[in-house]
Amino acid sequence: MDLSGEESRARAVAVATELFALTGFKGTSVAAVAARTGLSQSGLLHHFPSKAALLTAVLEERDRQDGDFLAGGDGPPLGWAAFDALGALVARNSTRPHLVGLFVRLAAEATDPAHPAHAWVLQHYSGLTRWLTDAVRTGQERGEIAADAPVASLVRLTIAVVDGVQQQWLLHPDQVSMTAEFEEFTRTLRARWSR
Amino acid sequence: MDLSGEESRARAVAVATELFALTGFKGTSVAAVAARTGLSQSGLLHHFPSKAALLTAVLEERDRQDGDFLAGGDGPPLGWAAFDALGALVARNSTRPHLVGLFVRLAAEATDPAHPAHAWVLQHYSGLTRWLTDAVRTGQERGEIAADAPVASLVRLTIAVVDGVQQQWLLHPDQVSMTAEFEEFTRTLRARWSR
Repeated sequence: MDLSGEESRARAVAVATELFALTGFKGTSVAAVAARTGLSQSGLLHHFPSKAALLTAVLEERDRQDGDFLAGGDGPPLGWAAFDALGALVARNSTRPHLVGLFVRLAAEATDPAHPAHAWVLQHYSGLTRWLTDAVRTGQERGEIAADAPVASLVRLTIAVVDGVQQQWLLHPDQVSMTAEFEEFTRTLRARWSR
Repeated sequence: MDLSGEESRARAVAVATELFALTGFKGTSVAAVAARTGLSQSGLLHHFPSKAALLTAVLEERDRQDGDFLAGGDGPPLGWAAFDALGALVARNSTRPHLVGLFVRLAAEATDPAHPAHAWVLQHYSGLTRWLTDAVRTGQERGEIAADAPVASLVRLTIAVVDGVQQQWLLHPDQVSMTAEFEEFTRTLRARWSR
Protein backbone atom coordinates (compact mmCIF):
# COMPACT_ATOMS: atom_id res chain seq x y z
CA MET A 1 0.00 0.00 0.00
CA ASP A 2 1.30 3.44 -0.81
CA LEU A 3 -0.60 6.14 1.01
CA SER A 4 0.10 9.84 1.45
CA GLY A 5 0.75 11.08 5.00
CA GLU A 6 -2.75 12.51 5.16
CA GLU A 7 -4.32 9.28 3.94
CA SER A 8 -2.28 7.13 6.34
CA ARG A 9 -3.31 9.31 9.22
CA ALA A 10 -7.00 9.15 8.35
CA ARG A 11 -6.84 5.42 7.79
CA ALA A 12 -5.06 4.85 11.12
CA VAL A 13 -7.82 6.80 12.90
CA ALA A 14 -10.52 4.70 11.19
CA VAL A 15 -8.72 1.45 12.05
CA ALA A 16 -8.12 2.54 15.66
CA THR A 17 -11.79 3.53 16.04
CA GLU A 18 -12.84 0.06 14.95
CA LEU A 19 -10.31 -1.74 17.15
CA PHE A 20 -10.92 0.42 20.26
CA ALA A 21 -14.65 -0.13 19.79
CA LEU A 22 -14.26 -3.90 19.43
CA THR A 23 -11.58 -4.70 21.99
CA GLY A 24 -11.31 -1.59 24.17
CA PHE A 25 -8.38 0.76 24.70
CA LYS A 26 -6.30 -1.67 26.77
CA GLY A 27 -7.05 -4.58 24.45
CA THR A 28 -5.81 -2.72 21.38
CA SER A 29 -2.10 -2.63 20.61
CA VAL A 30 -0.30 0.03 18.58
CA ALA A 31 1.17 -2.90 16.60
CA ALA A 32 -2.31 -4.14 15.61
CA VAL A 33 -3.40 -0.65 14.51
CA ALA A 34 -0.18 -0.26 12.49
CA ALA A 35 -0.58 -3.67 10.82
CA ARG A 36 -4.19 -3.08 9.77
CA THR A 37 -3.36 0.44 8.59
CA GLY A 38 -0.56 -0.94 6.42
CA LEU A 39 2.15 0.98 8.29
CA SER A 40 5.20 -0.05 10.27
CA GLN A 41 4.95 0.62 13.98
CA SER A 42 7.45 3.47 13.69
CA GLY A 43 5.47 4.82 10.72
CA LEU A 44 2.33 4.92 12.89
CA LEU A 45 4.22 6.48 15.80
CA HIS A 46 5.38 9.20 13.42
CA HIS A 47 1.74 10.32 13.14
CA PHE A 48 0.71 9.49 16.73
CA PRO A 49 3.49 9.46 19.32
CA SER A 50 1.51 7.26 21.72
CA LYS A 51 -1.62 5.12 22.00
CA ALA A 52 -3.16 7.94 24.05
CA ALA A 53 -2.55 10.37 21.17
CA LEU A 54 -4.26 7.91 18.83
CA LEU A 55 -7.25 7.74 21.17
CA THR A 56 -7.48 11.52 21.31
CA ALA A 57 -7.48 11.59 17.50
CA VAL A 58 -10.27 8.98 17.47
CA LEU A 59 -12.37 11.07 19.84
CA GLU A 60 -11.69 14.29 17.91
CA GLU A 61 -12.80 12.53 14.75
CA ARG A 62 -15.93 11.31 16.57
CA ASP A 63 -16.68 14.90 17.68
CA ARG A 64 -16.21 16.08 14.10
CA GLN A 65 -18.58 13.42 12.74
CA ASP A 66 -21.10 14.10 15.51
CA GLY A 67 -20.85 17.80 14.68
CA ASP A 68 -21.68 17.04 11.04
CA PHE A 69 -24.54 14.80 12.17
CA LEU A 70 -25.92 17.54 14.44
CA ALA A 71 -25.51 20.21 11.77
CA GLY A 72 -27.59 18.15 9.33
CA GLY A 73 -27.69 18.81 5.60
CA ASP A 74 -29.51 22.13 5.81
CA GLY A 75 -27.44 23.98 8.38
CA PRO A 76 -27.66 23.64 12.16
CA PRO A 77 -31.10 22.88 13.66
CA LEU A 78 -32.31 25.76 15.81
CA GLY A 79 -34.69 26.15 18.76
CA TRP A 80 -36.28 22.90 19.96
CA ALA A 81 -35.15 21.17 16.75
CA ALA A 82 -31.62 21.17 18.20
CA PHE A 83 -32.89 18.99 21.07
CA ASP A 84 -34.44 16.61 18.53
CA ALA A 85 -31.09 16.41 16.70
CA LEU A 86 -29.35 15.70 20.00
CA GLY A 87 -31.94 12.98 20.67
CA ALA A 88 -31.10 11.43 17.30
CA LEU A 89 -27.42 11.47 18.27
CA VAL A 90 -28.27 9.77 21.57
CA ALA A 91 -30.16 7.10 19.58
CA ARG A 92 -27.14 6.61 17.36
CA ASN A 93 -24.90 6.28 20.42
CA SER A 94 -27.20 3.53 21.71
CA THR A 95 -25.86 1.36 18.89
CA ARG A 96 -22.18 1.81 19.80
CA PRO A 97 -21.56 0.94 23.45
CA HIS A 98 -17.80 0.45 23.10
CA LEU A 99 -17.28 3.91 21.70
CA VAL A 100 -19.55 5.43 24.37
CA GLY A 101 -17.60 3.54 27.04
CA LEU A 102 -14.31 4.86 25.70
CA PHE A 103 -15.73 8.38 25.65
CA VAL A 104 -17.08 8.20 29.20
CA ARG A 105 -13.83 6.82 30.62
CA LEU A 106 -11.58 9.23 28.74
CA ALA A 107 -13.74 12.27 29.54
CA ALA A 108 -13.57 11.38 33.24
CA GLU A 109 -9.80 10.75 33.26
CA ALA A 110 -9.16 13.89 31.26
CA THR A 111 -10.76 16.18 33.87
CA ASP A 112 -7.24 16.07 35.30
CA PRO A 113 -5.40 19.08 33.74
CA ALA A 114 -2.23 16.97 33.47
CA HIS A 115 -3.95 14.34 31.31
CA PRO A 116 -2.86 14.20 27.63
CA ALA A 117 -6.52 14.43 26.51
CA HIS A 118 -7.37 17.45 28.68
CA ALA A 119 -7.35 19.85 25.71
CA TRP A 120 -9.65 17.48 23.80
CA VAL A 121 -12.18 17.25 26.66
CA LEU A 122 -12.31 21.05 27.10
CA GLN A 123 -12.83 21.42 23.36
CA HIS A 124 -15.56 18.75 23.35
CA TYR A 125 -17.65 20.52 25.99
CA SER A 126 -17.05 24.04 24.73
CA GLY A 127 -18.04 23.06 21.18
CA LEU A 128 -21.24 21.35 22.30
CA THR A 129 -22.09 24.20 24.67
CA ARG A 130 -21.62 26.84 21.99
CA TRP A 131 -23.72 24.92 19.47
CA LEU A 132 -26.63 24.37 21.87
CA THR A 133 -26.48 27.91 23.31
CA ASP A 134 -26.79 29.39 19.81
CA ALA A 135 -29.73 27.09 19.07
CA VAL A 136 -31.59 28.05 22.28
CA ARG A 137 -30.98 31.78 21.76
CA THR A 138 -32.31 31.55 18.21
CA GLY A 139 -35.34 29.69 19.58
CA GLN A 140 -35.91 32.62 21.93
CA GLU A 141 -35.59 35.17 19.13
CA ARG A 142 -38.14 33.23 17.10
CA GLY A 143 -40.53 33.20 20.07
CA GLU A 144 -40.43 29.39 20.29
CA ILE A 145 -38.58 29.27 23.63
CA ALA A 146 -39.54 31.60 26.50
CA ALA A 147 -37.46 34.76 26.63
CA ASP A 148 -36.92 34.30 30.38
CA ALA A 149 -35.62 30.71 30.07
CA PRO A 150 -32.23 30.41 31.80
CA VAL A 151 -30.19 29.61 28.69
CA ALA A 152 -26.90 28.64 30.33
CA SER A 153 -28.66 26.25 32.73
CA LEU A 154 -30.79 24.68 30.01
CA VAL A 155 -27.63 23.98 28.05
CA ARG A 156 -25.63 22.66 31.01
CA LEU A 157 -28.45 20.42 32.24
CA THR A 158 -29.07 19.01 28.77
CA ILE A 159 -25.40 18.08 28.34
CA ALA A 160 -25.37 16.69 31.90
CA VAL A 161 -28.36 14.46 31.13
CA VAL A 162 -26.70 13.07 27.99
CA ASP A 163 -23.52 12.28 29.95
CA GLY A 164 -25.18 11.01 33.10
CA VAL A 165 -27.60 8.71 31.29
CA GLN A 166 -24.66 7.20 29.36
CA GLN A 167 -23.06 6.19 32.66
CA GLN A 168 -26.24 4.40 33.83
CA TRP A 169 -26.76 2.79 30.41
CA LEU A 170 -23.22 1.39 30.36
CA LEU A 171 -23.96 -0.30 33.69
CA HIS A 172 -27.41 -1.61 32.69
CA PRO A 173 -27.76 -1.58 28.89
CA ASP A 174 -30.84 -3.83 29.03
CA GLN A 175 -32.69 -1.75 31.63
CA VAL A 176 -31.90 1.81 30.59
CA SER A 177 -33.01 3.38 27.31
CA MET A 178 -30.90 6.47 26.69
CA THR A 179 -33.32 7.61 24.00
CA ALA A 180 -36.42 7.29 26.20
CA GLU A 181 -34.75 9.13 29.11
CA PHE A 182 -33.52 11.94 26.90
CA GLU A 183 -37.00 12.32 25.36
CA GLU A 184 -38.60 12.42 28.80
CA PHE A 185 -36.14 15.16 29.80
CA THR A 186 -36.82 17.28 26.71
CA ARG A 187 -40.59 16.87 27.19
CA THR A 188 -40.14 18.38 30.65
CA LEU A 189 -38.10 21.27 29.22
CA ARG A 190 -40.69 21.94 26.51
CA ALA A 191 -43.54 21.78 29.02
CA ARG A 192 -41.87 24.51 31.04
CA TRP A 193 -40.22 26.76 28.46
CA SER A 194 -42.22 26.53 25.21
CA ARG A 195 -44.01 29.65 23.99
CA MET B 1 0.12 2.63 68.37
CA ASP B 2 -1.79 -0.53 69.19
CA LEU B 3 -5.05 -0.71 67.31
CA SER B 4 -7.50 -3.56 66.84
CA GLY B 5 -7.96 -4.88 63.30
CA GLU B 6 -11.26 -3.04 63.02
CA GLU B 7 -9.73 0.22 64.25
CA SER B 8 -6.72 -0.09 61.94
CA ARG B 9 -8.99 -0.68 58.99
CA ALA B 10 -11.20 2.32 59.76
CA ARG B 11 -8.17 4.51 60.37
CA ALA B 12 -6.53 3.44 57.10
CA VAL B 13 -9.73 4.36 55.22
CA ALA B 14 -9.81 7.80 56.87
CA VAL B 15 -6.12 8.40 56.11
CA ALA B 16 -6.51 7.20 52.50
CA THR B 17 -9.55 9.45 52.00
CA GLU B 18 -7.51 12.44 53.12
CA LEU B 19 -4.47 11.54 51.00
CA PHE B 20 -6.45 10.64 47.86
CA ALA B 21 -8.35 13.91 48.23
CA LEU B 22 -5.16 15.94 48.65
CA THR B 23 -2.80 14.30 46.17
CA GLY B 24 -5.02 12.12 43.97
CA PHE B 25 -5.03 8.36 43.48
CA LYS B 26 -1.78 8.21 41.49
CA GLY B 27 -0.03 10.64 43.83
CA THR B 28 -0.78 8.57 46.92
CA SER B 29 1.42 5.61 47.80
CA VAL B 30 0.40 2.58 49.85
CA ALA B 31 3.54 3.27 51.90
CA ALA B 32 2.33 6.79 52.79
CA VAL B 33 -1.11 5.50 53.84
CA ALA B 34 0.54 2.76 55.93
CA ALA B 35 2.91 5.21 57.63
CA ARG B 36 0.18 7.69 58.58
CA THR B 37 -2.10 4.88 59.72
CA GLY B 38 0.66 3.56 62.01
CA LEU B 39 0.90 0.22 60.18
CA SER B 40 3.65 -1.56 58.29
CA GLN B 41 3.05 -1.82 54.57
CA SER B 42 2.36 -5.56 54.88
CA GLY B 43 0.01 -4.80 57.79
CA LEU B 44 -1.97 -2.43 55.55
CA LEU B 45 -1.94 -4.93 52.66
CA HIS B 46 -3.41 -7.48 55.05
CA HIS B 47 -6.57 -5.30 55.20
CA PHE B 48 -6.45 -4.06 51.61
CA PRO B 49 -4.65 -6.26 49.09
CA SER B 50 -4.09 -3.36 46.65
CA LYS B 51 -4.33 0.40 46.33
CA ALA B 52 -7.45 -0.16 44.18
CA ALA B 53 -9.06 -2.11 47.06
CA LEU B 54 -8.24 0.79 49.38
CA LEU B 55 -9.90 3.21 46.97
CA THR B 56 -13.00 1.05 46.77
CA ALA B 57 -13.16 1.06 50.58
CA VAL B 58 -12.84 4.87 50.57
CA LEU B 59 -15.73 5.18 48.11
CA GLU B 60 -17.88 2.67 50.02
CA GLU B 61 -17.26 4.69 53.17
CA ARG B 62 -18.19 7.86 51.29
CA ASP B 63 -21.44 6.23 50.11
CA ARG B 64 -22.16 5.16 53.71
CA GLN B 65 -21.58 8.70 55.02
CA ASP B 66 -23.60 10.21 52.16
CA GLY B 67 -26.36 7.72 52.97
CA ASP B 68 -26.37 8.90 56.60
CA PHE B 69 -26.37 12.52 55.39
CA LEU B 70 -29.32 11.87 53.08
CA ALA B 71 -31.22 9.92 55.71
CA GLY B 72 -30.95 12.84 58.13
CA GLY B 73 -31.60 12.56 61.84
CA ASP B 74 -35.33 11.91 61.56
CA GLY B 75 -35.44 9.13 58.99
CA PRO B 76 -35.24 9.47 55.23
CA PRO B 77 -36.72 12.63 53.64
CA LEU B 78 -39.69 11.76 51.43
CA GLY B 79 -41.37 13.35 48.42
CA TRP B 80 -39.79 16.59 47.22
CA ALA B 81 -37.82 16.83 50.46
CA ALA B 82 -35.58 14.04 49.12
CA PHE B 83 -34.58 16.35 46.25
CA ASP B 84 -33.74 19.06 48.80
CA ALA B 85 -31.57 16.58 50.70
CA LEU B 86 -29.83 15.62 47.46
CA GLY B 87 -29.29 19.34 46.76
CA ALA B 88 -27.64 19.69 50.17
CA LEU B 89 -25.36 16.76 49.30
CA VAL B 90 -24.47 18.43 46.00
CA ALA B 91 -23.61 21.60 47.96
CA ARG B 92 -21.40 19.55 50.28
CA ASN B 93 -19.66 17.96 47.27
CA SER B 94 -18.90 21.45 45.95
CA THR B 95 -16.45 21.78 48.85
CA ARG B 96 -14.51 18.61 48.02
CA PRO B 97 -13.36 18.62 44.39
CA HIS B 98 -10.64 15.99 44.82
CA LEU B 99 -13.07 13.44 46.21
CA VAL B 100 -15.60 14.24 43.47
CA GLY B 101 -12.85 13.85 40.86
CA LEU B 102 -11.89 10.47 42.28
CA PHE B 103 -15.52 9.39 42.26
CA VAL B 104 -16.13 10.51 38.68
CA ARG B 105 -13.00 8.80 37.38
CA LEU B 106 -13.55 5.56 39.27
CA ALA B 107 -17.24 5.37 38.39
CA ALA B 108 -16.33 5.72 34.70
CA GLU B 109 -13.50 3.17 34.79
CA ALA B 110 -15.63 0.74 36.76
CA THR B 111 -18.35 0.55 34.08
CA ASP B 112 -16.03 -2.18 32.73
CA PRO B 113 -17.30 -5.44 34.30
CA ALA B 114 -13.69 -6.63 34.68
CA HIS B 115 -12.75 -3.60 36.84
CA PRO B 116 -12.06 -4.33 40.53
CA ALA B 117 -14.53 -1.59 41.57
CA HIS B 118 -17.36 -2.82 39.33
CA ALA B 119 -19.32 -4.28 42.27
CA TRP B 120 -18.93 -1.00 44.15
CA VAL B 121 -20.24 1.10 41.24
CA LEU B 122 -23.29 -1.15 40.75
CA GLN B 123 -24.02 -0.92 44.47
CA HIS B 124 -23.60 2.87 44.43
CA TYR B 125 -26.23 3.38 41.72
CA SER B 126 -28.65 0.74 42.94
CA GLY B 127 -28.58 2.17 46.49
CA LEU B 128 -29.19 5.73 45.31
CA THR B 129 -31.89 4.59 42.86
CA ARG B 130 -33.75 2.62 45.54
CA TRP B 131 -33.61 5.50 48.03
CA LEU B 132 -34.91 8.09 45.55
CA THR B 133 -37.55 5.75 44.07
CA ASP B 134 -38.99 5.13 47.55
CA ALA B 135 -39.03 8.87 48.24
CA VAL B 136 -40.85 9.69 44.97
CA ARG B 137 -43.42 6.90 45.46
CA THR B 138 -44.16 8.14 48.96
CA GLY B 139 -44.53 11.64 47.54
CA GLN B 140 -47.13 10.26 45.13
CA GLU B 141 -49.00 8.45 47.91
CA ARG B 142 -49.11 11.68 49.90
CA GLY B 143 -50.50 13.54 46.88
CA GLU B 144 -47.44 15.82 46.71
CA ILE B 145 -46.11 14.40 43.42
CA ALA B 146 -48.45 13.66 40.48
CA ALA B 147 -49.66 10.06 40.38
CA ASP B 148 -48.83 9.88 36.65
CA ALA B 149 -45.24 11.11 37.05
CA PRO B 150 -42.87 8.60 35.40
CA VAL B 151 -41.04 7.54 38.57
CA ALA B 152 -38.19 5.55 37.03
CA SER B 153 -37.35 8.37 34.61
CA LEU B 154 -37.52 11.05 37.31
CA VAL B 155 -35.05 9.03 39.36
CA ARG B 156 -32.70 8.24 36.46
CA LEU B 157 -32.67 11.82 35.19
CA THR B 158 -32.04 13.24 38.67
CA ILE B 159 -29.06 10.94 39.19
CA ALA B 160 -27.85 11.72 35.65
CA VAL B 161 -27.96 15.45 36.37
CA VAL B 162 -25.94 15.06 39.58
CA ASP B 163 -23.29 13.03 37.70
CA GLY B 164 -23.24 15.08 34.52
CA VAL B 165 -22.97 18.42 36.30
CA GLN B 166 -20.02 17.07 38.32
CA GLN B 167 -18.15 16.40 35.09
CA GLN B 168 -18.68 20.00 33.86
CA TRP B 169 -17.84 21.44 37.27
CA LEU B 170 -14.54 19.54 37.43
CA LEU B 171 -13.57 21.13 34.11
CA HIS B 172 -14.72 24.66 35.03
CA PRO B 173 -15.07 24.95 38.82
CA ASP B 174 -15.20 28.77 38.62
CA GLN B 175 -17.90 28.91 35.96
CA VAL B 176 -20.24 26.09 36.98
CA SER B 177 -22.25 26.04 40.21
CA MET B 178 -23.38 22.47 40.84
CA THR B 179 -25.86 23.71 43.45
CA ALA B 180 -27.45 26.30 41.17
CA GLU B 181 -27.78 23.82 38.29
CA PHE B 182 -29.29 21.15 40.50
CA GLU B 183 -31.78 23.65 41.94
CA GLU B 184 -32.78 24.79 38.46
CA PHE B 185 -33.36 21.17 37.50
CA THR B 186 -35.53 20.41 40.54
CA ARG B 187 -37.53 23.63 39.97
CA THR B 188 -38.35 22.28 36.50
CA LEU B 189 -39.39 18.91 37.93
CA ARG B 190 -41.59 20.55 40.57
CA ALA B 191 -43.16 22.86 37.98
CA ARG B 192 -44.21 19.84 35.98
CA TRP B 193 -45.02 17.17 38.57
CA SER B 194 -46.17 18.93 41.76
CA ARG B 195 -49.75 18.41 42.88
